[in-house]
Amino acid sequence: MTEPLDASVSPRFAQVATFGRLPLQRDLGNAAAVFLGIPWDDATSYRSGAREGPSAIRTASRLVRPYNMFADVYPFRVLDLVDYGDIDPVPGYTEDTFQRIQGGLEPLFRASVVPFVAGGDHSITLPILRAYRAARSEGVSLLHFDAHFDTWESYWGTKRYTHGTWVKRAYEEGLIRKGGVFQVGIRSSLYSREDVTANGAVVDRTFTTEDVDSEGYKPLMDRILRSVADSPVYVSVDIDVLDPAYAPGTGTPESGGLTSREMIHFVRELHRANLVGFDLVEVAPQYDHTGQVTALAASNLLYEGMCALARRRKPKAKG
Amino acid sequence: MTEPLDASVSPRFAQVATFGRLPLQRDLGNAAAVFLGIPWDDATSYRSGAREGPSAIRTASRLVRPYNMFADVYPFRVLDLVDYGDIDPVPGYTEDTFQRIQGGLEPLFRASVVPFVAGGDHSITLPILRAYRAARSEGVSLLHFDAHFDTWESYWGTKRYTHGTWVKRAYEEGLIRKGGVFQVGIRSSLYSREDVTANGAVVDRTFTTEDVDSEGYKPLMDRILRSVADSPVYVSVDIDVLDPAYAPGTGTPESGGLTSREMIHFVRELHRANLVGFDLVEVAPQYDHTGQVTALAASNLLYEGMCALARRRKPKAKG
Amino acid sequence: MTEPLDASVSPRFAQVATFGRLPLQRDLGNAAAVFLGIPWDDATSYRSGAREGPSAIRTASRLVRPYNMFADVYPFRVLDLVDYGDIDPVPGYTEDTFQRIQGGLEPLFRASVVPFVAGGDHSITLPILRAYRAARSEGVSLLHFDAHFDTWESYWGTKRYTHGTWVKRAYEEGLIRKGGVFQVGIRSSLYSREDVTANGAVVDRTFTTEDVDSEGYKPLMDRILRSVADSPVYVSVDIDVLDPAYAPGTGTPESGGLTSREMIHFVRELHRANLVGFDLVEVAPQYDHTGQVTALAASNLLYEGMCALARRRKPKAKG
Amino acid sequence: MTEPLDASVSPRFAQVATFGRLPLQRDLGNAAAVFLGIPWDDATSYRSGAREGPSAIRTASRLVRPYNMFADVYPFRVLDLVDYGDIDPVPGYTEDTFQRIQGGLEPLFRASVVPFVAGGDHSITLPILRAYRAARSEGVSLLHFDAHFDTWESYWGTKRYTHGTWVKRAYEEGLIRKGGVFQVGIRSSLYSREDVTANGAVVDRTFTTEDVDSEGYKPLMDRILRSVADSPVYVSVDIDVLDPAYAPGTGTPESGGLTSREMIHFVRELHRANLVGFDLVEVAPQYDHTGQVTALAASNLLYEGMCALARRRKPKAKG
Amino acid sequence: MTEPLDASVSPRFAQVATFGRLPLQRDLGNAAAVFLGIPWDDATSYRSGAREGPSAIRTASRLVRPYNMFADVYPFRVLDLVDYGDIDPVPGYTEDTFQRIQGGLEPLFRASVVPFVAGGDHSITLPILRAYRAARSEGVSLLHFDAHFDTWESYWGTKRYTHGTWVKRAYEEGLIRKGGVFQVGIRSSLYSREDVTANGAVVDRTFTTEDVDSEGYKPLMDRILRSVADSPVYVSVDIDVLDPAYAPGTGTPESGGLTSREMIHFVRELHRANLVGFDLVEVAPQYDHTGQVTALAASNLLYEGMCALARRRKPKAKG
Amino acid sequence: MTEPLDASVSPRFAQVATFGRLPLQRDLGNAAAVFLGIPWDDATSYRSGAREGPSAIRTASRLVRPYNMFADVYPFRVLDLVDYGDIDPVPGYTEDTFQRIQGGLEPLFRASVVPFVAGGDHSITLPILRAYRAARSEGVSLLHFDAHFDTWESYWGTKRYTHGTWVKRAYEEGLIRKGGVFQVGIRSSLYSREDVTANGAVVDRTFTTEDVDSEGYKPLMDRILRSVADSPVYVSVDIDVLDPAYAPGTGTPESGGLTSREMIHFVRELHRANLVGFDLVEVAPQYDHTGQVTALAASNLLYEGMCALARRRKPKAKG
Repeated sequence: MTEPLDASVSPRFAQVATFGRLPLQRDLGNAAAVFLGIPWDDATSYRSGAREGPSAIRTASRLVRPYNMFADVYPFRVLDLVDYGDIDPVPGYTEDTFQRIQGGLEPLFRASVVPFVAGGDHSITLPILRAYRAARSEGVSLLHFDAHFDTWESYWGTKRYTHGTWVKRAYEEGLIRKGGVFQVGIRSSLYSREDVTANGAVVDRTFTTEDVDSEGYKPLMDRILRSVADSPVYVSVDIDVLDPAYAPGTGTPESGGLTSREMIHFVRELHRANLVGFDLVEVAPQYDHTGQVTALAASNLLYEGMCALARRRKPKAKG
Repeated sequence: MTEPLDASVSPRFAQVATFGRLPLQRDLGNAAAVFLGIPWDDATSYRSGAREGPSAIRTASRLVRPYNMFADVYPFRVLDLVDYGDIDPVPGYTEDTFQRIQGGLEPLFRASVVPFVAGGDHSITLPILRAYRAARSEGVSLLHFDAHFDTWESYWGTKRYTHGTWVKRAYEEGLIRKGGVFQVGIRSSLYSREDVTANGAVVDRTFTTEDVDSEGYKPLMDRILRSVADSPVYVSVDIDVLDPAYAPGTGTPESGGLTSREMIHFVRELHRANLVGFDLVEVAPQYDHTGQVTALAASNLLYEGMCALARRRKPKAKG
Repeated sequence: MTEPLDASVSPRFAQVATFGRLPLQRDLGNAAAVFLGIPWDDATSYRSGAREGPSAIRTASRLVRPYNMFADVYPFRVLDLVDYGDIDPVPGYTEDTFQRIQGGLEPLFRASVVPFVAGGDHSITLPILRAYRAARSEGVSLLHFDAHFDTWESYWGTKRYTHGTWVKRAYEEGLIRKGGVFQVGIRSSLYSREDVTANGAVVDRTFTTEDVDSEGYKPLMDRILRSVADSPVYVSVDIDVLDPAYAPGTGTPESGGLTSREMIHFVRELHRANLVGFDLVEVAPQYDHTGQVTALAASNLLYEGMCALARRRKPKAKG
Repeated sequence: MTEPLDASVSPRFAQVATFGRLPLQRDLGNAAAVFLGIPWDDATSYRSGAREGPSAIRTASRLVRPYNMFADVYPFRVLDLVDYGDIDPVPGYTEDTFQRIQGGLEPLFRASVVPFVAGGDHSITLPILRAYRAARSEGVSLLHFDAHFDTWESYWGTKRYTHGTWVKRAYEEGLIRKGGVFQVGIRSSLYSREDVTANGAVVDRTFTTEDVDSEGYKPLMDRILRSVADSPVYVSVDIDVLDPAYAPGTGTPESGGLTSREMIHFVRELHRANLVGFDLVEVAPQYDHTGQVTALAASNLLYEGMCALARRRKPKAKG
Repeated sequence: MTEPLDASVSPRFAQVATFGRLPLQRDLGNAAAVFLGIPWDDATSYRSGAREGPSAIRTASRLVRPYNMFADVYPFRVLDLVDYGDIDPVPGYTEDTFQRIQGGLEPLFRASVVPFVAGGDHSITLPILRAYRAARSEGVSLLHFDAHFDTWESYWGTKRYTHGTWVKRAYEEGLIRKGGVFQVGIRSSLYSREDVTANGAVVDRTFTTEDVDSEGYKPLMDRILRSVADSPVYVSVDIDVLDPAYAPGTGTPESGGLTSREMIHFVRELHRANLVGFDLVEVAPQYDHTGQVTALAASNLLYEGMCALARRRKPKAKG
Repeated sequence: MTEPLDASVSPRFAQVATFGRLPLQRDLGNAAAVFLGIPWDDATSYRSGAREGPSAIRTASRLVRPYNMFADVYPFRVLDLVDYGDIDPVPGYTEDTFQRIQGGLEPLFRASVVPFVAGGDHSITLPILRAYRAARSEGVSLLHFDAHFDTWESYWGTKRYTHGTWVKRAYEEGLIRKGGVFQVGIRSSLYSREDVTANGAVVDRTFTTEDVDSEGYKPLMDRILRSVADSPVYVSVDIDVLDPAYAPGTGTPESGGLTSREMIHFVRELHRANLVGFDLVEVAPQYDHTGQVTALAASNLLYEGMCALARRRKPKAKG
């Protein structure tokens, strides 16, 4: 049963920072879930910097504590969580990096370990989903929180693997389940009206920020969770789903985003889903000089995801 | 038909930044609207820095894309938008600068071009309204989004042209229409109770942030738009109408402001108005070190204003 | 009757900054309330820096003006407010510092002066409450706005006086009134489920951010104010009750917090309470590089507290 | 005999910051010298922000202590120094501001008080020199440390009073002594070769940074001090004489500047001169986010100037 | 004859920033030299961000003026300089990008135009040298200012084109001249002693910072210039040759570097060389929050390079 | 033989940062030296923040590589270096913390392991020296690089253990050797002339920055090293010995400090000394927003110290 460093003995600012101050180890032991980082940002189209995301999230996560009163659960104990370290990318080489990612994730999925992944840019979700499919021979329902569609065909003419094309690729490669693909928080301006059509061909339902305003964020999450039912659910959170006020440290920020309270609610409700994987991407801390609020939000969303999983696994926390 | 640089060929971080990556030109061609900057900040009463506003807004606007799905419109194409460059101020000399501004805007208004102006401090709205009157021989309805009244009589004893007196001057000079002057977002503390009276003499209706909370921002905007009907409408957005969380980079920030989603809604609804001019002022990027969220919000509000105008001009977008 | 520097003669950025540009004096004169700072941060468990809180709040408060239209009151005149300076701490020595604080506050409470205190870390509230009790021989109702319980038993094994234990100590020492202790904004993760129990033994009602969402912030404040009725009320605002988007400059920020508008509403309603003291703690400006939005929010909350007090004292403002 | 706050009782981060933690007073008492601020920046040609210079310098000067071992002197005691506060400018109106400055300085010069002035932009030196001439009926030798000539004729066509024209004006108005005008640290690029000629007509000798490199900074200062002999000497230090590494927070920084050690040497040698006034201008702290190194350098240079004066007045320090 | 915007009419902070405020054009006209940007940073091994280098350098270069008194030359007039815009990279694809760079530079070298290139990471120098060779059928002498060798064989196992391998590649491809390859400012720690040997096989002479200290920077530059004599000289300046105090905004900073005065001297002496190309790389402004001192140093070094070229072309400036 | 992570496989920005990317372990194995952190800052008199020093230094040290060509040595291999983690302080309790530090260091000194310690504030050196004495029954020669004496008697009246009193305490407790105590870089202003006398009673020779200028930094280090000869030497580097341009991130910065090249030279010469311990203190990264140049300088000085030790141990590096 893994335990974080005891903050009443070792102050939060002491010792090398791991996620939640958990043990750093490659040995899975009994872990039902792990934290891991993928510091890769060469598939970004605008501002780079997400390669420092895992490091910033680990530092911010020193504030996370073992018990969550909202979920009434001790996630680290229930899940025997460890910090699994990072998957090393191959800077400048997307396909090589994708292979390393897929190779790194497959053993986790085979062992039914749920990965909580800190990116890195959003392109990393594609090889993670490939790993799931390779390990478990099935696709996933996808809950995609983002300001952007990420269903574009290509960038720079012919480049098909970027942080803006991964949903399209996942669809083409059969990694995501028909009827189980939902987007929340979408609001960016687009290249053309055809983008809407193309996105609609891939995604079952897209909830824009205007939809969040008009439907209310709680009913909206209910609808999604009812739809995915007990299918295996993969959650991918681009931190730019939050408003830049809440997450300035990201590569392609868009005004008019969600608040942290809205987003925490969404993640907290995941205890009702059959969660098989979770990523939080696009934290670029270089652009956040305000006490690192972006990484703080990110580490809390990852933590709430872990709590949701733990709550489902062990409905009544015992510590 | 103007087009921005194609981001699939030239990445957003490449080339010299113009608004929306549009052509930079003084030749109006067929433009129905232009972006222009007025980098002036010597009429500020507290923190200076808005002289760098146009530059920061142009940089942030590299993220703006040609199609807006909420308005279903291609604003740049519909309006043949160009970046018209800046009007050069005369640092340290308010009246000289006002003459340059008025002189620069008159030809635009004469040509029925709608200017989208990035300030600069709020004093610039006065010479813009003078230009409109000179060119079109009529006053405008004024939609004024701000934390502050800007209806003070003078500063420093006798100085009548500052960023806090322009509404009063516009009223005295007959530049704004009786019955068509509305304020939204007002919340600053005041010098005296007489400020309220004086403001009431100039402004037809002032909606404070408490009004926004109690009435709801959507009904409130409906009321305003019904009131101005088809009169020529000038919109002036002081970025400090947003909460400092959303717009830290400004000279006189006030707590308790609007969110970006509220403000985007207000601007998006402008397609129902007869918009003749739009300014976005008081962005002082020196005070925003968080990935420039202020300039990002500002560039999006300008963009949404352009979309609103385009939508009215061409209800059904064809690209 | 104290008056701030006249901003129409002396610009806000000129002269040495005191709170609200009020006179800096140790002579109370007729003051019904004072502003004072307690620059102490050695009882923090995570990030230090709150020793610069009073200085940052004074600088930000240069924007505060003499009349509040929402309360219809001139707080500085009504209360004859002065800036009382700082209480000098003894860096590195908690108990010595507590003695200086208690010794500094007792004369104020004896003279029925209401202190508006800028911290400093949250441990300072304990000696303030001790001073109140010593001076007035009674405990207070406590309205505690915070992300954290602050009812822990000890830190580092045996250390009982820290910024996370002061509510427990105040309870044990009989400084707070049974039935009158309320918390708002609580949301941090915890060390164990027992923390909830222990907090419940001390606090009469704890409103988490989920409660704020489900009940609405206006009804919630009504409930609290009805409960405390006319008892002497002490208000303690940890700035981390706000979301990090609104208050990045603090030592233990937690995602999912209140907005500035919600918090202003809470404070504005205090005119219905018998306010005897008010503190605003944990502003660590080193972590806020965005034009100091944290200190700005803090100075406005202190100002609104002063307005609430003045409004109660003099229901109809006359200037 | 004025004394700063005792840092062994009141920590340096406590209490409202005045220069050197000295008393803030308008009563000169026996003061032989005063610190004062002139927060004015509307005469800048590039980046504004120096209006916050006095405030930042006061904050940084909290680190200055009463005894200087290099000069073997207690400057505050010897000079009975006080912080005289700021002279209020008239934002946006240069000539009005110049009148306030001249009016504020004349009484000091009449009382033979040596002002140590924190700017503000460099235009303020002109009205200070006018005040000296009006009070003492003589011109001064000028030691001008700067990256720029400041001998331009005008800006924006016809504007003769800016931060780049004051030396020319001082010369024309007979405020500086033939044979006693020296520049050190000059290195900026110029508008034309005629600038060199024009500067040469006003300045007796200009030492560029290449001269500092080839002659050595110690011999160079010797030459200057021998030249000015016992004439009344006014020293004007534009903080941009330092390299941007040492002083990033300034409006028109130029690469290749002096180091802090070189500049401290220059000022320390001033005990050999008959110093009648000293200013340190162009600190714009908004552009310095590194722990405020610019304001720190500025406060030390002002302090060393005070020590130099005190050392001359009382060659053997007694405390 | 190209001229920058007249700063006496259009203030430096107005209008869209181009290098030196020169015309932005792809038409070479009579240009003997151009400024151009290459915003590429996917070949970096540590911190990314140099993609924003050209933009930051253009902004900082607004301060550069038309006449240099140290060189006694008007570089823009003499060289008919223009801002040629950026070469668009292909994010994530090194070889594609190299082709675009080579293709973009060849026409310039064919027209005997001297490019002054702002990077971008250091890998860009390789395709620039390829372009020179393709256009002029000869190699160049290389003056390489850097903290690092950049002669490594590969990264990530097999990747041969990165910002740390370009000198090795240039040597292998015959792009640089035997006997004409010099390094200055080298000081980083290394992977192994073999790195020294391998570097020695490629570079004729390496001057470390210890060499600069012991030989003096002026004699050292003399030696280099005598060695290269009249051969075509290409100068490549990695901004990390400066100490991090002078250039914090870069990807792989190393302590103990050169000062700006030393580096300006080196560049200023280039009027004695037959300069055919010049690049300034690795400016990553995200890591420089101090008023952008890095970009300022970079823009000055580029300017001094232009002046050196102009001085050689036209020994006696006429304006 | 310990090895850092191979940067050609795992990029420097990947994986959890330890010093030099070395193994993190409490098992000393064959280590002749260790890196360890002491994150303590409650004994500071001005700005706090050094509790984040070890974390920032580890992050910056990712750039350090295994071979040093100046020393011709592989320090990690020669010394079998590991990252030993942090010693947990007791926040707010100086004496408790000192006990933890002494207890943590004694086993190292007993095992003849040389600790390279990253502070933390300067008070930590006292318990380290106590540990040395307890373990080895002898005092040390002390090479103290600092802007300040640190020989004050007490702070806040009676507090004898602070970051400004440790040298005095070490002297009184007999922890340092008569004739072997040297200070370099001293320059701060003082409280009184008696400070000089008191310091002289404790320190054998104090070299101020003026001494560095007049004697030259190389001869000066020679003199010191000849004096200490083969005695056990402890080196304590307060990062504020560097000028704030080179080290803005520190608590009590003083203008006019050393350059990084000077300081590197001092440390590099230590191969001539019998080094038994080394600390680098007072890095407060909160005050350094420029790409963390302070932590970078600190990590390089620690690395050079390791190289000096390794060079002495194994004069001829073999890898």
